[in-house]
Amino acid sequence: MEEKLVKEIPPKSENLSQWYLEVIRRAELADYAPMKGMMVIRPAGYAIWENIQRLLDKRFKETGHVNAYFPLFIPESFLKKEAEHVEGFAPEVAWVTKGGSEELQEPLAVRPTSEAIICAMYSRWVRSWRDLPILINQWANVVRWEKVTRPFLRTTEFLWQEGHTVHATFEDAQEEVLRILNIYREFIENELAIKVYAGRKSEREKFAGALYTYTVEALMPDGKALQAGTSHNLGQNFSRAFEIRFEDRDQKLKYAWQTSWGVSTRLIGATVMVHGDDDGLVLPPKVAPHQVVVVPIYKAKDKERVLSFGEKLHGELKDKFRVVYDSREEYTPGWKFAEWELRGVPLRIEVGPRDIEKNQVVFVRRDTREKFSVPVQELTPRADEVLERIQRELFKRSEAFTLENTREARNYQELKEIIEEKRGFVVAPWCGREECELKVKEENKATIRLIPPEGENAEGKKCIVCGGPAKHIVYFARSY
Amino acid sequence: MEEKLVKEIPPKSENLSQWYLEVIRRAELADYAPMKGMMVIRPAGYAIWENIQRLLDKRFKETGHVNAYFPLFIPESFLKKEAEHVEGFAPEVAWVTKGGSEELQEPLAVRPTSEAIICAMYSRWVRSWRDLPILINQWANVVRWEKVTRPFLRTTEFLWQEGHTVHATFEDAQEEVLRILNIYREFIENELAIKVYAGRKSEREKFAGALYTYTVEALMPDGKALQAGTSHNLGQNFSRAFEIRFEDRDQKLKYAWQTSWGVSTRLIGATVMVHGDDDGLVLPPKVAPHQVVVVPIYKAKDKERVLSFGEKLHGELKDKFRVVYDSREEYTPGWKFAEWELRGVPLRIEVGPRDIEKNQVVFVRRDTREKFSVPVQELTPRADEVLERIQRELFKRSEAFTLENTREARNYQELKEIIEEKRGFVVAPWCGREECELKVKEENKATIRLIPPEGENAEGKKCIVCGGPAKHIVYFARSY
Repeated sequence: MEEKLVKEIPPKSENLSQWYLEVIRRAELADYAPMKGMMVIRPAGYAIWENIQRLLDKRFKETGHVNAYFPLFIPESFLKKEAEHVEGFAPEVAWVTKGGSEELQEPLAVRPTSEAIICAMYSRWVRSWRDLPILINQWANVVRWEKVTRPFLRTTEFLWQEGHTVHATFEDAQEEVLRILNIYREFIENELAIKVYAGRKSEREKFAGALYTYTVEALMPDGKALQAGTSHNLGQNFSRAFEIRFEDRDQKLKYAWQTSWGVSTRLIGATVMVHGDDDGLVLPPKVAPHQVVVVPIYKAKDKERVLSFGEKLHGELKDKFRVVYDSREEYTPGWKFAEWELRGVPLRIEVGPRDIEKNQVVFVRRDTREKFSVPVQELTPRADEVLERIQRELFKRSEAFTLENTREARNYQELKEIIEEKRGFVVAPWCGREECELKVKEENKATIRLIPPEGENAEGKKCIVCGGPAKHIVYFARSY
Repeated sequence: MEEKLVKEIPPKSENLSQWYLEVIRRAELADYAPMKGMMVIRPAGYAIWENIQRLLDKRFKETGHVNAYFPLFIPESFLKKEAEHVEGFAPEVAWVTKGGSEELQEPLAVRPTSEAIICAMYSRWVRSWRDLPILINQWANVVRWEKVTRPFLRTTEFLWQEGHTVHATFEDAQEEVLRILNIYREFIENELAIKVYAGRKSEREKFAGALYTYTVEALMPDGKALQAGTSHNLGQNFSRAFEIRFEDRDQKLKYAWQTSWGVSTRLIGATVMVHGDDDGLVLPPKVAPHQVVVVPIYKAKDKERVLSFGEKLHGELKDKFRVVYDSREEYTPGWKFAEWELRGVPLRIEVGPRDIEKNQVVFVRRDTREKFSVPVQELTPRADEVLERIQRELFKRSEAFTLENTREARNYQELKEIIEEKRGFVVAPWCGREECELKVKEENKATIRLIPPEGENAEGKKCIVCGGPAKHIVYFARSY
């Protein structure tokens, strides 16, 4: 029992990294597996993932996508077909070399991402313009042999969705890439209540094998950026490598245009970090496994009365919300409060004998600790309203923090100072040369996180590093 | 286009095996991957799996289960902890021996099933009787290095759910095992419309590491049985191997009791085989990706009128059903009929100019080809009723076929003859000795598929093989 108590969580503001690990362990979101860099997603963590899946999958289907499932293993020769792709991923591939008792003639990569196997199938399925677009997504596990790992944020195996689409033209592919980027942004802001910036990656930071990579980037409380999702325009790189060609309306044989895009269980880590506090998780109502907990409070003589009243409330609430009724007798109300706070349930409803007499209940918000009475007849609409408000205010806080920590730098010295002293995003013009990008990285440990749409053109500005003519206005930051 | 035509599917009754492969390929349920024994589940197949997942997951959650996710890789030493378990699975394990550029000190098994890694975690999580029961399920991919494969029925990688539960007593574990067995039976019969027998496996046929294995067995059209799901009472075999102990209410430290249970994408294969016909798939409405297809039929002059009428029907139906409106102009109605029949859509609704005048539509059942007019104002309730009837009648047919092909044998000669000439299930008493079980297998290629609850006791009967006192009345059959 003591293991579950909140007391020993280090303050979030003092040591974010330690706080994060402790909260994840104590709230039972995940546990370390006995193999290097691997984790177990426990029920409390997986339930968040199920909500993420449900809410994202709905958006994918509404925009015409369907799900499929491709093999876990990719022959080495397939991975090698797209040169940049294999160069980018080979160092972090886990290899299967033995099946049963037989040594395999060709090693099989455990997929680090599925372009290579999916493109091999698409080259069979695509024949005519009538077959296009192909709009397929898959929910799957992938493996990347990482050196430094951290639960949810970077693990050897993780769960994700990866969309892989095929189009007749560059424009169709580009439209898809931006449609998905916008779904990611809207989903993360509205469901996870996390403010993100959306934009394009620099050449250096793009996906191995892509023409352009687009990204959504969130700001963590320690001022470091977190890449929350990416959407790639693959151009014709893979269609040329895998011979994905179609006969167009003009009867000419053409290479197809492709995209791929994904978000992962990393989003759970971002949600924990952005919203949590010193008492544990604070979960946005839209993805919280439990949105409401009802806790009965009573002395022996009132027991029956309070328990059956609580039961009634639970019965009413459960049609509309994900609600848990904590009527366990082996724990005190105070212990329950601490446990459900640790687990981040957005709304606690307390009910005791005096509340019954007044025909009311007590609401306690997890995020603000605000406490107020609500007449029983208004139970459902008020709970609905409070949950909506929590969701909205969590986003507002994230947005305010992100905007406060997005600063323009007028010169390189200022960039250095902001990164060193305040962190956050630094907005500045850049000439587009890798040399300047690398200098910022080496001297400040900060990379270009994105080029926002409004920063694509920087006419008349000067690069913050070399003073030469700027091509883009970009966001620099340290990152996870 | 010709590739999609139905013509060349061999008749189901002539060559079930060939028919099965062709239907799966043409209806685009799956395709072969370019690696031995691996398949791609295409959108039309994966949509069936999504329905299976949704309907089963609901049943698991209603009975108190939660989902989690455990690692894909299992260190060799963990797999070896339970002796029978490793003996059963080692021959079919795929081994990861290299991560990035480093050779691993200990090979990692790609999970063939997850008892070994899950039990390692449970040994950390279980401390007290208060922690029990643990009722966890996971939806995951698993890999078994199979020699002979067939899409959905036996593939190197497949998708499944695996439940792993921990209990304080044998009785609790046994109750769970039978609860799940009953969920499987009820789910397969009511949602997949396939009759199954439920019962216990013989010692020889049980899961590697289990105390008892329970199974649901379905009969395929060629008279061979198919194991459709299993539920294992693991006893204390794994808790002793992995040290899963808890302090009970009496303050004594005890080894826990465990279960595990699973069904897989194999269920898709069973559904295809049981219900399909010479024109392709016949899908039970409850799991069909599309339950209804609306096909407009018109000549040029009626085009606008018919298309907008069809649109209206589609709009009404889509609130209640999974419906597709096939208004493609590049295909004829006849071609569309054949395609949607191939794909197994249970109900086709045709609408032409004369139907509009009479304010009616034409319903065509996929299973019986029955064709009849329905007034537009009764559209939704009649569609609902027809789909319900199709679902019910598909099950009735499967049930009738299974019962007709379940025969009692009075002596060994009769058993031989039935298996050879008619196949199906042969019901007969058995002494319980492996010797007799093996004789039937070697001489007839038939195994004991199950011991039904009513066959546990066979007092007074004689073993059909040796004539000795019978212990059980069992079901023999050839199988997939």
